[in-house]
Amino acid sequence: MRAEIINIGDELLIGQVVNTNASWMASELNKAGITVVRITTIADDRQAIFNSLDEASQRADIIFISGGLGPTKDDITKKTLAQYFDSGFVFHEPTYEQIKFIFATRQLPLTEINIEQAQVPEKCTPLLNKNGTAPGMWFEKEGKVFVSMPGVPFEMKTMVSEQVIPRLQEKYHLGFILHKTVMTTGVPESTLAIKIMKWEEQLPENIKLAYLPQPGIVRLRLSATGGDKKQLETAVNDEVDKLKGIIDEYIFGYDDVSIEEVIGQLLVAHHESLSTAESCTGGYIAHLITSVPGSSRYFIGSIISYANAVKTNQLGVSSTDIEMNGAVSRKVVMAMAKGVRKQLKTTYGLAVSGIAGPDGGTKEKPVGTVWIALAGEEHVEAQLFHFGEHRGRNIRRSALAGLNILRLHLIDK
Amino acid sequence: MRAEIINIGDELLIGQVVNTNASWMASELNKAGITVVRITTIADDRQAIFNSLDEASQRADIIFISGGLGPTKDDITKKTLAQYFDSGFVFHEPTYEQIKFIFATRQLPLTEINIEQAQVPEKCTPLLNKNGTAPGMWFEKEGKVFVSMPGVPFEMKTMVSEQVIPRLQEKYHLGFILHKTVMTTGVPESTLAIKIMKWEEQLPENIKLAYLPQPGIVRLRLSATGGDKKQLETAVNDEVDKLKGIIDEYIFGYDDVSIEEVIGQLLVAHHESLSTAESCTGGYIAHLITSVPGSSRYFIGSIISYANAVKTNQLGVSSTDIEMNGAVSRKVVMAMAKGVRKQLKTTYGLAVSGIAGPDGGTKEKPVGTVWIALAGEEHVEAQLFHFGEHRGRNIRRSALAGLNILRLHLIDK
Repeated sequence: MRAEIINIGDELLIGQVVNTNASWMASELNKAGITVVRITTIADDRQAIFNSLDEASQRADIIFISGGLGPTKDDITKKTLAQYFDSGFVFHEPTYEQIKFIFATRQLPLTEINIEQAQVPEKCTPLLNKNGTAPGMWFEKEGKVFVSMPGVPFEMKTMVSEQVIPRLQEKYHLGFILHKTVMTTGVPESTLAIKIMKWEEQLPENIKLAYLPQPGIVRLRLSATGGDKKQLETAVNDEVDKLKGIIDEYIFGYDDVSIEEVIGQLLVAHHESLSTAESCTGGYIAHLITSVPGSSRYFIGSIISYANAVKTNQLGVSSTDIEMNGAVSRKVVMAMAKGVRKQLKTTYGLAVSGIAGPDGGTKEKPVGTVWIALAGEEHVEAQLFHFGEHRGRNIRRSALAGLNILRLHLIDK
Repeated sequence: MRAEIINIGDELLIGQVVNTNASWMASELNKAGITVVRITTIADDRQAIFNSLDEASQRADIIFISGGLGPTKDDITKKTLAQYFDSGFVFHEPTYEQIKFIFATRQLPLTEINIEQAQVPEKCTPLLNKNGTAPGMWFEKEGKVFVSMPGVPFEMKTMVSEQVIPRLQEKYHLGFILHKTVMTTGVPESTLAIKIMKWEEQLPENIKLAYLPQPGIVRLRLSATGGDKKQLETAVNDEVDKLKGIIDEYIFGYDDVSIEEVIGQLLVAHHESLSTAESCTGGYIAHLITSVPGSSRYFIGSIISYANAVKTNQLGVSSTDIEMNGAVSRKVVMAMAKGVRKQLKTTYGLAVSGIAGPDGGTKEKPVGTVWIALAGEEHVEAQLFHFGEHRGRNIRRSALAGLNILRLHLIDK
């Protein structure tokens, strides 16, 4: 079963709004076993709507349309669809009741243009909008389904989940698509590709692989198609197991979990706590950790020692060590990790000291040179990294590398 | 001048990645006076790429293509474009140098598939990728321009800003459009709209206004079109001056400057320094401040006191005060600001303590309750905020509100 998505709205074409509806719809259709072959964004323009409907219905069986259903003049989708399907209008009583209800709740006066929203093309099956005033519309023509939905995300989402997907499942005998994403860090995409080349080549025909790189992270997405859900799950899990045999050290989790979430789970499981001492990352590691709800169970705090005086006064790093080795050195970063662990009384202290750039690099220590240390009760380790030229990326990659050092220690225990 | 955008990537069609490239590209093209008429997302599939190129070139003069340029097997855009434009390949020496440089900087081994990226279709003008290994490609055919760019956002953005837009401006002698963005914070969009309604109505016909809201920030973009650059500048500056007369207190800068950059400039000008004591923001303020290159000139460090023990031990907050008032209180946040200022020996101490959520709220102090304090040499002030339900947004809005309190103090002096 093939689908296309058509998002209508001038605001999308001038870049004022990011099209989050498209990715959400695509993800829901995929989960239901429907393949999205194209997403098209067009203006609130009659001819553009006509053309894109013609084109989409030649390629796909199901056409999802969002946007342009508001009560104001610039919203022309309903009128245009009525013309496209050569349909007159009828008054839809349940929608009128819903409009009255919404205006009463918000204590707003009901105007003519609001009541107008209860007029629907007679050739469609109206879909009640539980969270707004504009109804959805389900058309069928020459074996194809066209569903028009409001552009307001939370109105559209409820309509898709509660009405549109169940109707599609009922109407079509839907095949099954299973996705599993393997999250890796600490290895560049190209190196990973070489390591898993043979595994990739032996994948069964119905399992596809995609590389999805982000700064410091490469996601490997396996997509399996077939009729039997159980069988697919087994097949995908078998392949993931083989993959683990090859690149286990780089895999930090599955299905879009973040490394900071994984670390949180491990620390909770071990009843252990964490503090950070950050120089070049400037609080970014602490920010990632505290972005996770409930992180106060294991994260105690951090000392951001941007200036060397903070390294000596708050973390107890020896100023002689800083003078002799520089702030970006094994000795100093180890002292930072031990210092914060001691000061904040945590199981682990994680420390980073590096040159994020653009300034501050030398020949011996160019921009991107980063030392990371982890201190535990009877254990200190430090590692040297060379990242790139770009400040923001250096900060991001340093943070991920630091979190990964902690993760590897926690799973090795 | 009409443009279309084609985003290539299976990850977009299964909804795993939100298409932020499309909105960014659309916005940049718009700013250059180019109208985007359609955005199409397709799979990494040869036929889909061929079809969408055919279709787009019938409707538009400029076709922006992103994605599918990685070194791995699933990325087929380069090969497909070479076929589409009936072109062989040549080795592009500057790209090879760039690839070698990137791998040397990161101290990674250079593999065959990386070197392969320096092969470019001979019929294109290669565009050097300053931030990555995959070059962009500029093709021209039958008076139309086709530009292919990497899908990694920061690689694509630098290429568009530094190479693609300037080339388009030169090629098409684009009419002059002047943009000026007024950055505001501390006021919701709807309130702002009412305050500036009369000013908006009196704007000359060639100056258009767009509201661009982000969490905690509303950008007002003025776009003026005309032939004479000098005249446009005067006209736009006149309107901005009028606007300052109405909403001066909310304006923190112009043209996408960040509030953390503005604060850096003010602190440097005053020869003053800053430290932060962060509870619910968990290091996010320190992260924003240290995202600015050169921030070590004024930012000394931070104490992230996630646990109350850190508030008492490292910041000197009285434990009785915490017991009596709670950690989220005027008294505690003021003590945090004074404490960090004293401990880190800075001109200012900025402190935040609040309930980010989703847990930890009470009837008296629901999720979103945030206290912020600023301490200077002879001055302490604290302010109470009520943000929303959403953890990430509460952290972001708390940080912006804190930075704005500091900014208002610095410009008032």
